[in-house]
Amino acid sequence: MSLKTGRGAEAPPFIVMDVIAAANARAASLPPSAPGILRMEVGQPATGAPAGAVAAVEAALRSGHPLGYTEAFGLPSLRARIARYYLDHYGVAVSPARIAVTVGASGAFPLAFLAAFDRGDRVAMAAPFYPPYANILTALGMEPVLLECGPETRFQPSLAMLEKLDPLPDGLVIASPCNPAGTMLTPDELAAIARWCHEKGVRLVSDEIYHGLSWGTVAESTAAASSPSAIVVNSFSKYWCMTGWRIGWLVLPEDLLRPVECLAQNMFISTPYLSQVAAEAAMDCGEELEAKKAGYARSRALLLEGLPKAGFDRIAAADGAFYLWCDVSHLTNDSVQFTGRMLEGAGIAATPGVDFDRTRGGRYLRFSYCGAEAAMAEAPGRLAEWLKR
Amino acid sequence: MSLKTGRGAEAPPFIVMDVIAAANARAASLPPSAPGILRMEVGQPATGAPAGAVAAVEAALRSGHPLGYTEAFGLPSLRARIARYYLDHYGVAVSPARIAVTVGASGAFPLAFLAAFDRGDRVAMAAPFYPPYANILTALGMEPVLLECGPETRFQPSLAMLEKLDPLPDGLVIASPCNPAGTMLTPDELAAIARWCHEKGVRLVSDEIYHGLSWGTVAESTAAASSPSAIVVNSFSKYWCMTGWRIGWLVLPEDLLRPVECLAQNMFISTPYLSQVAAEAAMDCGEELEAKKAGYARSRALLLEGLPKAGFDRIAAADGAFYLWCDVSHLTNDSVQFTGRMLEGAGIAATPGVDFDRTRGGRYLRFSYCGAEAAMAEAPGRLAEWLKR
Repeated sequence: MSLKTGRGAEAPPFIVMDVIAAANARAASLPPSAPGILRMEVGQPATGAPAGAVAAVEAALRSGHPLGYTEAFGLPSLRARIARYYLDHYGVAVSPARIAVTVGASGAFPLAFLAAFDRGDRVAMAAPFYPPYANILTALGMEPVLLECGPETRFQPSLAMLEKLDPLPDGLVIASPCNPAGTMLTPDELAAIARWCHEKGVRLVSDEIYHGLSWGTVAESTAAASSPSAIVVNSFSKYWCMTGWRIGWLVLPEDLLRPVECLAQNMFISTPYLSQVAAEAAMDCGEELEAKKAGYARSRALLLEGLPKAGFDRIAAADGAFYLWCDVSHLTNDSVQFTGRMLEGAGIAATPGVDFDRTRGGRYLRFSYCGAEAAMAEAPGRLAEWLKR
Repeated sequence: MSLKTGRGAEAPPFIVMDVIAAANARAASLPPSAPGILRMEVGQPATGAPAGAVAAVEAALRSGHPLGYTEAFGLPSLRARIARYYLDHYGVAVSPARIAVTVGASGAFPLAFLAAFDRGDRVAMAAPFYPPYANILTALGMEPVLLECGPETRFQPSLAMLEKLDPLPDGLVIASPCNPAGTMLTPDELAAIARWCHEKGVRLVSDEIYHGLSWGTVAESTAAASSPSAIVVNSFSKYWCMTGWRIGWLVLPEDLLRPVECLAQNMFISTPYLSQVAAEAAMDCGEELEAKKAGYARSRALLLEGLPKAGFDRIAAADGAFYLWCDVSHLTNDSVQFTGRMLEGAGIAATPGVDFDRTRGGRYLRFSYCGAEAAMAEAPGRLAEWLKR
């Protein structure tokens, strides 16, 4: 007989993964003499882990250590190093006991959601949003509540929006800087939201994965500074350029420490040993990482100057991360078809907005500028020429 | 106000993780001149990844490749290599398209359970069992149905037990060899269960993580050979000695391919790049791995001879894996206290049965013999002397 599948089997894809596959296929189909595909679809730095991280891994490999399981929450030295980062970067004291090392930010979300929420619980977030927030919640039987946000609130939720929710949600996910819009909440806005959540019994999950990558328009702040009940998610994938190492962390509130530890013991046992070694060393590679960041800043400046001239002139406030969220409603109302034609005609891969916004995504697309600097410099010219044709 | 926590916050710990911490603490408290702690509590080979795997990783690090995200199901070359393993090891043709590389077997279970089952679904398994099966199901709102098994069925479920279930369960988890008992289903028994599940619409999840480690009393067979609807879970942690690399795989039935891919895109993005490189190389390190296996075989033989003389004479059929499941009801009915005293008095860490069997676990304990061979040789003497005191 045919077997049943679970509700989880209805999880939508994370479409950017399919866009990457299409860009790979297009690149492979081109003759070697053709101009290559400019990769602006993926939120992955073009370069890998910093040299100090690679050296630490090589030393660990040579040491003869079996590189086995660690404690579920990670190597004590890494947890201590992450705690120190809170003091250095934000001036906030966080105990190493509250740090849980996870399999990327991706691995952190199911732990956080399962510990904090129940099936049927409603968890609010701005739209546009990072698709896995909603997709993981849905797979776990929880309900994403989408708050449609626009340029007037920098595509971020406001206290006014939250106060209007009736009933109040059980949780709220925020991200500042956010993906896809690259926009930020000011420190005051973030603190006010964090305090409101704590007072109202709404569990705040603050995704801080793009911290370290902001461009001076808004200051960076962590929810850990304003709320004892917030869950903070972070990762070594973005600022530290370690996507493929699958390593991130949680800063946990006291009441969720043991629950998340038990869940992590069962669902992960522990995170990859070598990635933990690399991550700890990466935190001391500031000079190399700041140089990479300067490259993104140059790419950002080139695009913010060139894209409007090319016809992409409705760009969300580019406060942080390495994304530009473009309203292309004057060019299309079908961003999937539009980015497909752009890949074919201009040789530029970008992500259609439908992945990030279920209602308005057809009129938006996301450019990522963490790829090769030369590609970012070339993009506006190619786009201008393509749109002219 | 105090915030709610989710039902997932009630997940019980995976107790062996706490036992490991206690053994570490005891070892650290001993004077350097004291005899060390013999580690028989953890299912982790004493040695690390094979040399060929380490060499492949060193080459990847030197290559300058950014080691970023891979496709959600893993590097095509690794998926092809795993598929070839099915032909080499079992004589079964499996398409690489059905292989999903996962973050260990641990990361495979939530994907499999979410794709196949819904909240409230009943999933049967033998007791004793690997605790995360039940703990993950419970965290996801599913219901483990425990089938109490004893030496008369080698601590494995039988068709007769399954047929008696009313209503039939939605799923069945089997493991052969199993943890903690180390016992196996014969190929005929496994095939009959797999066919029965397929006919009755019961989703079979076959945990084959201890394949490669069986001792000749029963032949190894894979559920992939007998059922098109079964989900097979495997990992590089045990035979390949790569616990800390967190890499495993699923063999998926056709109907779950896209659902699991979507879930994996959202919940993991992809698995660690370096671990994928290491795993592919490890599959060609047969000679080194067979030598390690010969060491476990020697340890097993020493223990099967020495433990009964020391007073541990009720051992489950030691068909596979590297565990001995001992009925200690003639010595205690509180295995937690008993193993605590054993750690203190004999300097031997073992896992109390309560982790694996909620009703009878107080009268069982698990010895793991994948640790240092010298320690395994020393254990029976220490135990005999301790029990005499």
